[in-house]
Amino acid sequence: VLPGDNLQQSSPIPDTAQTDKERPTDSAGKAGLPRVVVVGSGFGGLNLVRGLSRGEVEVILLDRNNYHGFWPLLYQVATAELIPDSIAFPIREVVRKYHQVTFHMAEVCDVDLQQKQIQLQAGPPLAYDYLVLAAGSTNNYFGNETTARNTFSLKDVDQAVEIRHGLLKAFEKASLEPDLNRRKKLLTFLIIGSGPTGVELSAAFAELILPLVRKYYPALADVPPRIILVEAHTTMLESFPKGLQKKAQQHLERLGVEVLKNHEVTQVENGEITFKHGSKMQAGTVVWAAGVRASPLAEKLGIKLAHGDRVPVEPTLNLQDHPDVFVIGDMAYLEGYKGGQQSYPGVAQVAIQMGERAAKNILAQVEGRPMKKFHYLDKGQLSTIGRKDAVADIFNLQLSGLLAWLVWAAVHIYYLLGMRNRLLVMLGWAYNYLTYNLAMRIIGGASNRKENQ
Amino acid sequence: VLPGDNLQQSSPIPDTAQTDKERPTDSAGKAGLPRVVVVGSGFGGLNLVRGLSRGEVEVILLDRNNYHGFWPLLYQVATAELIPDSIAFPIREVVRKYHQVTFHMAEVCDVDLQQKQIQLQAGPPLAYDYLVLAAGSTNNYFGNETTARNTFSLKDVDQAVEIRHGLLKAFEKASLEPDLNRRKKLLTFLIIGSGPTGVELSAAFAELILPLVRKYYPALADVPPRIILVEAHTTMLESFPKGLQKKAQQHLERLGVEVLKNHEVTQVENGEITFKHGSKMQAGTVVWAAGVRASPLAEKLGIKLAHGDRVPVEPTLNLQDHPDVFVIGDMAYLEGYKGGQQSYPGVAQVAIQMGERAAKNILAQVEGRPMKKFHYLDKGQLSTIGRKDAVADIFNLQLSGLLAWLVWAAVHIYYLLGMRNRLLVMLGWAYNYLTYNLAMRIIGGASNRKENQ
Repeated sequence: VLPGDNLQQSSPIPDTAQTDKERPTDSAGKAGLPRVVVVGSGFGGLNLVRGLSRGEVEVILLDRNNYHGFWPLLYQVATAELIPDSIAFPIREVVRKYHQVTFHMAEVCDVDLQQKQIQLQAGPPLAYDYLVLAAGSTNNYFGNETTARNTFSLKDVDQAVEIRHGLLKAFEKASLEPDLNRRKKLLTFLIIGSGPTGVELSAAFAELILPLVRKYYPALADVPPRIILVEAHTTMLESFPKGLQKKAQQHLERLGVEVLKNHEVTQVENGEITFKHGSKMQAGTVVWAAGVRASPLAEKLGIKLAHGDRVPVEPTLNLQDHPDVFVIGDMAYLEGYKGGQQSYPGVAQVAIQMGERAAKNILAQVEGRPMKKFHYLDKGQLSTIGRKDAVADIFNLQLSGLLAWLVWAAVHIYYLLGMRNRLLVMLGWAYNYLTYNLAMRIIGGASNRKENQ
Repeated sequence: VLPGDNLQQSSPIPDTAQTDKERPTDSAGKAGLPRVVVVGSGFGGLNLVRGLSRGEVEVILLDRNNYHGFWPLLYQVATAELIPDSIAFPIREVVRKYHQVTFHMAEVCDVDLQQKQIQLQAGPPLAYDYLVLAAGSTNNYFGNETTARNTFSLKDVDQAVEIRHGLLKAFEKASLEPDLNRRKKLLTFLIIGSGPTGVELSAAFAELILPLVRKYYPALADVPPRIILVEAHTTMLESFPKGLQKKAQQHLERLGVEVLKNHEVTQVENGEITFKHGSKMQAGTVVWAAGVRASPLAEKLGIKLAHGDRVPVEPTLNLQDHPDVFVIGDMAYLEGYKGGQQSYPGVAQVAIQMGERAAKNILAQVEGRPMKKFHYLDKGQLSTIGRKDAVADIFNLQLSGLLAWLVWAAVHIYYLLGMRNRLLVMLGWAYNYLTYNLAMRIIGGASNRKENQ
């Protein structure tokens, strides 16, 4: 185990007793530079790394996946509009241009703030001079393990592919099912939670499922599929202005989505959904999009966490009493959003701008300058509703319909990493738009979980 | 349970007690026609269905997947050259144009030749008038369960994706591994079996792996990756002419593949390969491409099977004493290849032509004409060796090098189903050819099996 201040040891993954020959060699030449360990390569982590690339620091970037996921388009992977590769970008491709950055695919399982080191799932501890936690968020089932087991979710590429396979399988099963009630259940698709994820997913479900049945499953013509969006509270798209909430609901209903507000789900088991006020409902496919919490890594810090297990940070984004440890993006809890006591939301723009600020503050410390507070430039929020409508609340403008959709498409293509991926996304969209041949895709083997069928 | 001769019952999946309202409706209008049940939608099954589409029969096509896999290009999915969707074609898209064909995604678990019905994994038995088994082949480990568990294989899309993930993971693990010997092991890739699959895969591995390391894993520069092709016998590409065998080996070695003949593998466990003559070898990734046997469905017929568990058929492709039951493609055992006592090999061309012949023979029976014997037009054989070489033995011409590769590419694009897939394959190839950016793709969650790492 190496002490945190041993800067002579520059192997990316320090190990105890080995000759130079046996040591991975890509860290040569970085000796003596302060080492920044970054956990997570989402919007926050990658923008931080980019910001650090201007400074005299060694950077070790860790992620449990080998790709950066462009999650705002993930729902389109779930509904077979985009292939997974078009929204996932290999991190080694990104960091190749920064000679002082090393990437490792590895999962972090513990953090020791006193010893200034982290523990990976395999191998010896890794010492840091500065640590940035940008590991994002995970689903919040509010302690309900049964619901977690019985619902799909949409937090990474594998889960999106599972939803895709689950959808297609539901139709295959329904077409073999002689019992009418079971057939109805198989063709009921329920999405829990009406934030942007729930809204975008349910609209995409409607656009996928209804033409699919007409075209490929004539045997199912007697059972119209139902797509139901369930919201516990009185408003959908809670963070949007009232006018856009209403527009969004109109757009959804026009696509064939049933919107069910004031319905809090307490249990999902065997395809039966139980609501708090007592009623029940049957659905073959249930997706959980109702809440997130910070990555479990937050719990390893041994400090009191805020709402949603997020880590309270100073306005300079570091931990109180730990100027060397930063937390950014979905993991961070910082009040001051819209100038008030609200905390900054877990959206890409906040993570990007926090990454930029944290990079500057680390370099400020390295270079002996004072850190600055995080200042957020709110660029607004967007949510699509299908393939030609959206709602947009940007720079004090409230848009809806096709214009909002075009803004949404332009923004998302602009932020997608890599020419190849931009091209793939545009080709995929163009192809789908022209042919309406969305969904007849293949069912792989990963879809054996969470079937209530 | 319905008797096999009850042709009034025309629901695709007969069930015992239901009203008309509850019954899947797509079988309306097919009542009274003889029912042909086809198991498997590979080259044999699909060409059979196409042949039957000219006749007065009801066809029920079953497959455990919802897609037709174009297996000759599967190795390119394993090496990240093609996305899975470009070689997998949705069966419902194919059968949509034939109004008398119904498809169901279902696995057949038993066959009752006397009652003339088959049993699906779920639901009541399905009666047939004619049955065609075209369920293909599976890996043959010759009873060695340990080897089966510890090797990758390449028989479907999921397995190809597993190989892809396994390869990429090996590099990530190696770059975190301080021990030189373990690093060497992780970077040793062994392919067992030097038929076309083994040859194509090992060449593609070499073209994938060597540039990958140079470009993205500078830390691994001290351990050159090894790609080893192992063959139990004295010749590789056994079915090819001697001259082409030699050329193929030269091409492979030029790409950096080590060819190890006369090495029969007896065990693979914990990344240790044991050979029959006693020596051992370490490899982190092992792929089994050494043998196939007929689908386990063959065993359900209750008749004596031939070499490789294949089902002996009459020259008219039906079972002896069962003119209503046909077996085609990889599942069928029929002598007469090249005019001699050799059985027809398990290749796409044989399956295609058997499918066409079986369709004609079923329609002959339906229409009261005599059946004809299977006659094979041998179009030759092809195997690529990387991205610009191949060997081709076609119409008495023996080609190698770029010309053979162009023939190979043209033939495979010609046989790929669907314009979209042809386009995807050509775009994929062009992109890879131009950028050499083959492999930096994403690692999904399905890759937790068969790691000897």
